[in-house]
Amino acid sequence: MEKKEMLYEGKAKQIYATDNPNEVIVYFKDDATAFNAQKRGSFEHKGTMNNAITVLIFEYLRDNGIPTHFIKNLNDREQLVKKVEIIPLEFVTRNYVAGSMAKRLGLEEGAKIENTVYDICYKNDDLGDPLINDDHAVLLGAATYDELLDMYELTADINDLLVELFDEAGLILADSKIELGITNDGELVLADEISPDTCRLWDKETGKKLDKDRFRRDLGEVSEAYLEVHERLLKVLKK
Amino acid sequence: MEKKEMLYEGKAKQIYATDNPNEVIVYFKDDATAFNAQKRGSFEHKGTMNNAITVLIFEYLRDNGIPTHFIKNLNDREQLVKKVEIIPLEFVTRNYVAGSMAKRLGLEEGAKIENTVYDICYKNDDLGDPLINDDHAVLLGAATYDELLDMYELTADINDLLVELFDEAGLILADSKIELGITNDGELVLADEISPDTCRLWDKETGKKLDKDRFRRDLGEVSEAYLEVHERLLKVLKK
Ligand SMILES: Nc1ncnc2c1ncn2[C@@H]1O[C@H](COP(=O)(O)OP(=O)(O)OP(=O)(O)O)[C@@H](O)[C@H]1O
Ligand SMILES: Nc1ncnc2c1ncn2[C@@H]1O[C@H](COP(=O)(O)OP(=O)(O)OP(=O)(O)O)[C@@H](O)[C@H]1O
Ligand SMILES: [Mg+2]
Ligand SMILES: [Mg+2]
Repeated sequence: MEKKEMLYEGKAKQIYATDNPNEVIVYFKDDATAFNAQKRGSFEHKGTMNNAITVLIFEYLRDNGIPTHFIKNLNDREQLVKKVEIIPLEFVTRNYVAGSMAKRLGLEEGAKIENTVYDICYKNDDLGDPLINDDHAVLLGAATYDELLDMYELTADINDLLVELFDEAGLILADSKIELGITNDGELVLADEISPDTCRLWDKETGKKLDKDRFRRDLGEVSEAYLEVHERLLKVLKK
Repeated sequence: MEKKEMLYEGKAKQIYATDNPNEVIVYFKDDATAFNAQKRGSFEHKGTMNNAITVLIFEYLRDNGIPTHFIKNLNDREQLVKKVEIIPLEFVTRNYVAGSMAKRLGLEEGAKIENTVYDICYKNDDLGDPLINDDHAVLLGAATYDELLDMYELTADINDLLVELFDEAGLILADSKIELGITNDGELVLADEISPDTCRLWDKETGKKLDKDRFRRDLGEVSEAYLEVHERLLKVLKK
């Protein structure tokens, strides 16, 4: 398998073609952005930790029956994945009140949500990835109503598994964002990454934030948080 | 029936108590606001036309089986209605792309929507009446999932009847906002008003806007538009 030209450069990752048209390589950078790229920076260990954490989580999810794009890890910053057409929606699952939802609804961060909250956002940087609803998604041609049902079901299954995994690692999964895609074979799979960039993770005992909010909110010890999450997952998954 | 103290003064209307605890009087002012009250003004005939149009429409909907708060018209600015507890949600139905949805999704105004779009917004002026989804509404305690189903069904029935009525009046109903409430008897009913303040109405032949967008966007002939809508409804309803 040969690494060929770069197909896409995002804010946190690069995507490279391979000699197989059904497979691409994801390269994890140390760059960090927040608030729709208004805040920019980078920190040590980000790329390697997000790659390693994503590998651990995607293997765990795959072993628990979740279809994913993941094929194999290549090195400390790169993984081989099935090429997919990304659904232009972000699927956000909220177990605790935090972030943009807290602001939108005028609620304080931190409360447990009794009914799990599922948000979908339209993946469009120019529009600021706005919150939308199912009718908008269908209007935009992002998915049909039936496809949305499948996507929400997959999202819910993933959330359940992640809540359990992070709980064993002494962490509350407050909320998370996933991306879904369709492979060249037409299969709906989990794509992109799952890492402290895409999950809010709070220490069960102390409440300490161990995720990208340390970068967003200038809380310090950013690299340390990513290293800690990786350590804890390694222990739980006995790798 | 006696008019007693003012219970609430809104941006466009006042609500007065009566000697019957189950009934209130709605008084329609000439005041107009837009963009969450950042733009303020007033224009001739607004209060009387919104009262008269709301009376015509609520009678039409009642005669077609829709439960409403409407009891009777009192004079050119006042109507007697059942007192309700307003559900803190705005139910927006979109038949054509326009307004805030056009902006949010990056779409041009004017296209017909094949799947009708239902938005709910959280009625909270401080938060700018944000778009939310069903999970947020349940989290906020605004309604249960089952109640939301009833509310969407009522909203859809109302939209169907309004589209038909306005079509006969030579008008496209691009979108509309309604408020629902619970009477002291526990009945879910249509409340508030339905008028050019709460509907986008476009002339079928010319596309001319005959609604509050004339005020919002400084298009001129604002009073004339409200008078015209009233005239056309009178003709269709043979009053
Ligand atoms: N299996 C895959 N096949 C093709 N593209 C993928 C796959 N997995 C993820 N992607 C896409 O690759 C890009 C990864 O780059 P990165 O995460 O840096 O993007 P980004 O700047 O966050 O932009 P975006 O808003 O698109 O996520 C994203 O656009 C993501 O949707
Ligand atoms: N039958 C009813 N019983 C009690 N309150 C009602 C009834 N119908 C409408 N209302 C409420 O009366 C008020 C009418 O005033 P107005 O429309 O001017 O309010 P507003 O400034 O638009 O504020 P809001 O954002 O609450 O609508 C609204 O708060 C509306 O929800
Ligand atoms: Mg990304
Ligand atoms: Mg109002």
